[in-house]
Amino acid sequence: MAAASPHPFDPLTPEEISRASKIVKPHFGSQVPNFRVVTLLEPSKKQMIPYLEAEHGGQPLGKAPDRCARIEVIVKGSRGENQLFELIVDLGSDRVVHKQHQNGKHSYIDSDYMQAVERACLADKNIQAEIGTLKLPPEATVVVESWAYATDGLNDMTERLTMCWFYMRLLNNPDANYYAYPLDLCAEVSETLQVTKTYRLPTKPSERVNQGKKPYDRRKVHSTVTSEYHPDLRPSPRTTTKPYQVVQPDGPSFQVEGNHLAWEKWSFRIGFNYREGLTLHDIRYDGRSLFYRLSLSEMFVPYGDPREPFARKAAFDLGNDGAGINANNLQLGCDCLGNIKYFDAHHNMPSGEPLKLPNVVCCHEQDDGILWKHTNFRTKSPVVARSRILVLQTIITVSNYEYIFAWHFGQDASILYEIRATGILSTVPTDIDVEERIPYGTVVAPGVLAPYHQHLFSLRIDPAIDGHKNSLVVEESSALPFNDPSVHNPFGIGYITEQKIIEEEGGFDLDFTKNRTFKFVNENKINPITGTPVGFKLTPFYSQKLLSHPSSFHAKRSEFGDHAVWVTRHQDGDHFPAGKYTMQSMGGDGLASAIARRKETGTAESIRDQDIVVWHTFGSTHNPRIEDWPVMPSEKLTVGLKPVNFFSGNPGLDVAPSTQEANKSVLYTGDETEGACCTV
Amino acid sequence: MAAASPHPFDPLTPEEISRASKIVKPHFGSQVPNFRVVTLLEPSKKQMIPYLEAEHGGQPLGKAPDRCARIEVIVKGSRGENQLFELIVDLGSDRVVHKQHQNGKHSYIDSDYMQAVERACLADKNIQAEIGTLKLPPEATVVVESWAYATDGLNDMTERLTMCWFYMRLLNNPDANYYAYPLDLCAEVSETLQVTKTYRLPTKPSERVNQGKKPYDRRKVHSTVTSEYHPDLRPSPRTTTKPYQVVQPDGPSFQVEGNHLAWEKWSFRIGFNYREGLTLHDIRYDGRSLFYRLSLSEMFVPYGDPREPFARKAAFDLGNDGAGINANNLQLGCDCLGNIKYFDAHHNMPSGEPLKLPNVVCCHEQDDGILWKHTNFRTKSPVVARSRILVLQTIITVSNYEYIFAWHFGQDASILYEIRATGILSTVPTDIDVEERIPYGTVVAPGVLAPYHQHLFSLRIDPAIDGHKNSLVVEESSALPFNDPSVHNPFGIGYITEQKIIEEEGGFDLDFTKNRTFKFVNENKINPITGTPVGFKLTPFYSQKLLSHPSSFHAKRSEFGDHAVWVTRHQDGDHFPAGKYTMQSMGGDGLASAIARRKETGTAESIRDQDIVVWHTFGSTHNPRIEDWPVMPSEKLTVGLKPVNFFSGNPGLDVAPSTQEANKSVLYTGDETEGACCTV
Repeated sequence: MAAASPHPFDPLTPEEISRASKIVKPHFGSQVPNFRVVTLLEPSKKQMIPYLEAEHGGQPLGKAPDRCARIEVIVKGSRGENQLFELIVDLGSDRVVHKQHQNGKHSYIDSDYMQAVERACLADKNIQAEIGTLKLPPEATVVVESWAYATDGLNDMTERLTMCWFYMRLLNNPDANYYAYPLDLCAEVSETLQVTKTYRLPTKPSERVNQGKKPYDRRKVHSTVTSEYHPDLRPSPRTTTKPYQVVQPDGPSFQVEGNHLAWEKWSFRIGFNYREGLTLHDIRYDGRSLFYRLSLSEMFVPYGDPREPFARKAAFDLGNDGAGINANNLQLGCDCLGNIKYFDAHHNMPSGEPLKLPNVVCCHEQDDGILWKHTNFRTKSPVVARSRILVLQTIITVSNYEYIFAWHFGQDASILYEIRATGILSTVPTDIDVEERIPYGTVVAPGVLAPYHQHLFSLRIDPAIDGHKNSLVVEESSALPFNDPSVHNPFGIGYITEQKIIEEEGGFDLDFTKNRTFKFVNENKINPITGTPVGFKLTPFYSQKLLSHPSSFHAKRSEFGDHAVWVTRHQDGDHFPAGKYTMQSMGGDGLASAIARRKETGTAESIRDQDIVVWHTFGSTHNPRIEDWPVMPSEKLTVGLKPVNFFSGNPGLDVAPSTQEANKSVLYTGDETEGACCTV
Repeated sequence: MAAASPHPFDPLTPEEISRASKIVKPHFGSQVPNFRVVTLLEPSKKQMIPYLEAEHGGQPLGKAPDRCARIEVIVKGSRGENQLFELIVDLGSDRVVHKQHQNGKHSYIDSDYMQAVERACLADKNIQAEIGTLKLPPEATVVVESWAYATDGLNDMTERLTMCWFYMRLLNNPDANYYAYPLDLCAEVSETLQVTKTYRLPTKPSERVNQGKKPYDRRKVHSTVTSEYHPDLRPSPRTTTKPYQVVQPDGPSFQVEGNHLAWEKWSFRIGFNYREGLTLHDIRYDGRSLFYRLSLSEMFVPYGDPREPFARKAAFDLGNDGAGINANNLQLGCDCLGNIKYFDAHHNMPSGEPLKLPNVVCCHEQDDGILWKHTNFRTKSPVVARSRILVLQTIITVSNYEYIFAWHFGQDASILYEIRATGILSTVPTDIDVEERIPYGTVVAPGVLAPYHQHLFSLRIDPAIDGHKNSLVVEESSALPFNDPSVHNPFGIGYITEQKIIEEEGGFDLDFTKNRTFKFVNENKINPITGTPVGFKLTPFYSQKLLSHPSSFHAKRSEFGDHAVWVTRHQDGDHFPAGKYTMQSMGGDGLASAIARRKETGTAESIRDQDIVVWHTFGSTHNPRIEDWPVMPSEKLTVGLKPVNFFSGNPGLDVAPSTQEANKSVLYTGDETEGACCTV
């Protein structure tokens, strides 16, 4: 393969982005398209399977699948309205092969537009008058935070609608934490940058929107001491934490070639797009195929405060915001420790020209404690192998919140997906007395309510366990009946596992009380020792489902939140468990509706021994603690993928036992008080 | 405080062990007591509370609580039977203040005796004849593994009974993995070292004990290639894993003084005893009391194979074996990485003299990724604090298995308890054809069945949240009713939390579907900002309960396995959720029975706003994978303790932001193929 030609899974190169945009422009005549998306249209699996087989089999590759770009542009319609078009450009023939007006749909959040909204809002005379009534302290600066409108049934227009939430910055520093001073003001701004509605927010549990017309209560202007996180605004930090450095004298154990990573028998390719951020492709261990594609596919953050207009706070952080476009520029020694390889990505500017997103993914190794150990108690001979993991990390900022997404690859052929939630809580003003309670939020500072909310993630798992025809198995561990003459269980202690192979698309729930386990197996490949199909299992994250009522817009828009595990038949491009266009969506575009439609129309196909996709919904019901304020200590959520009777033994058995010679630990002997009792 | 006098929580010194034994000996006349236990009797909480208050308040300490030793000795009775005595020695007055014959009870496993059992078993003529019928390969050595008898109702004698399981070692190396060659032979050995019964084990699902009288099937003598783990018996290991070292140029951030540890606002004392191993005492953060005592209190490992005699495999790894006495001697650079402080412990020899257990606990720091981060999206200014954790680790070997126990202390005032299960699976012989299935085990090598089993741990949490009067609160997150005119929930998206304060001792279950959360709170200390009682919460590990039938001996003996969370009123010395003497116990000694007895006798006391103890049962239903063979990759189980509205904000807010200057990471630039597509 010529080094210069991209691999079919590689994201578009800057040249390809630029070329695709140029090819598109003439299709809009004299209009100037606003390029929102110029991204790789991943090749069909039908094309990729033979390509990958040839690639890994050392065969001639033949013609690579055509490079195609998927494009979203917005142009202004005759009434000044936004018109969203989706186009496909074939970069082999330099032709637009598909163009469709996505009527009534919206592309993801346009930050340039959002900034214009904020400016328009602050320039609005009525808003200025409202701010005047708040009687803010003279040093205060008003900050407007614009949010995409979450459908609540009250204003379901097809035009874009933006909610503006108001805060004030007390300190004269742009990094001051304005979330610590939420104001009881809110506005709706139209596509044409008009303030169409203003609200006075309720600040007491029993209060309703626009009931509160009192001036801003100066008692709420609490000290900034406990609410600032930026070091410029904080007292000196603790000095007790001594430096801790990672040294890899021979460099890291991974090899990088373009977007291909090889590490400790693992092989995979990394991808990146504006929406999902980091994606992983063609994941293999020791030459055997495990997963075709792994990605975080969606995330929904609905707030639980029932009062109008707070139902409008409900963010699709991938569909509306984009995990790629909001990925942080990661810094050596801060976001990552050790020997770090950074990957850049490219998005596009509104003009269609490429936009470099530097250092959006970091790749490094970590020591992970003990991989395995056994001490023969007869010989006292210990053997210890330490666990090394490979970490691929990306961090996104979505307004106030941060999410740290990391894939961990283990030497035992396990994969762990870890999410850390950090950043700043979204806040609203409150005006309760200390003895009052608000049952749907936590007061984190005087006058500051951090409302309850949920984070629901959808992890998309496209298994390719020793091939592409896989089945989903649900296994449970069940006690054998006792005192049943037909069952041999004389002591009442026997238990067995029972498997059910899923035949139809659908959603399933977790049940740890039954040790319910979801496995992806290849029924055509029987492990010669265990006699069972080779497989991997999901080690799920146990969390509460969406709490919104099934008939609410929240529930209709985020269907994946209703079950922890979904299985569907693979379809190219079907990457969106809440629908492709989530901005101001009305529901009915998600996993459940798609499955139901296929059943209703008779197009549902069996999913047993087929190319399946599994979607794991997990998250947290985040009822804030004051310890989450003003910036949250990372809250970890982890999901695992582990081999189950896939190999012929522990895949990490050949990891070399640990030695002090290689690891160079240091014996601590200091700080002992002479003469003190130094035994445990 | 004189440096030379032990702190009341310090384990007995070697001198104290020796002295206590000498004081005991005359109480047995001419008999030579076999000292099984000489350990600290921890002072009563009534004595300790004022002592700790004075200590932390900088007051004069006054008289320290008397040092006392708890002792178990075995002497031979007139019929040669074992008689177990428990004694208390007051080391202040050098007197035995308590002596009791524990009639019908057994001390924990005596390894000297177990070795005698193995020798007696192999010397037995009948056993030798049975082995002869097995027609083993000439190079084979028979290895006997003795196990404490798990009560099954068939031989519930008061005398000690030992089960002997047979294996063979094929390679002429004492570290060869004999668990890879289980034999279909088993024996019972009496207290007087007589083989009282031999069994031929069933090897087919439908077979029953003593049905199989065929010679050992030589086809089962599989190659050792996939079954050995010791590096001397393995091909050369992989060489791809490059060294990874931790450098702490200024040393670690902890201070050790005797058994007191101070680190990053944390302060606590470590203890150690033969049974629980590592214990933690008087745990404080930033001067505020959090927990009085934390310990792993029991662990039960019942096997699920219903066939006789496999019900007899059910180990209380703390009560029967002892997490302290079986703790590994930890090695620099192998079990721990970085700057390591090791702690020794002291047990006693049968003579009563002290026995040093070296390096049983290691203490070190780890980098734990990102503690918190926020990027101001307006200024693009990121602030990242890395998370440092303090790890206290101890590892035990219980015959075939290893458990790695680690307490992680976080800079955000969280505590994580991590268990890693590793080591070798317990195996039994099997003789099934490849198309046959055994529903209660996994064939991990030809002829080798790894039976299903459970690991049930009991973590004992003695909270002292800002004082000793605490309450247990159960909180759930519940959707507000929709379309109920009495409830304001116009969009169907509202949810609230509901709290219940537990008034009576009892057991409770987890329910992630309700986001059920268990909190320890101090109702007398109200957080001035949130207006709620200060507290900590348990982040539990979700796992299946004991699968044995409630009327089985397994269930009766391990009552803690029936609920995930138990709460009791604190009682000094009440550290044993399955009873103090678990060896050959008959049940009725556990948490549930104790609670029921107190209710029946009218001695149950309220547990609200009282000194309470919370016990968390968790574990795994371990249905082995072949990947667990021949030595298991660590299976992690984690439990957390986190502040909930205890502080006035993020306790890690003052951790200094990370800098490359301190962390000295290295940018990886190698391995790039010139001209290759190097963008993501």
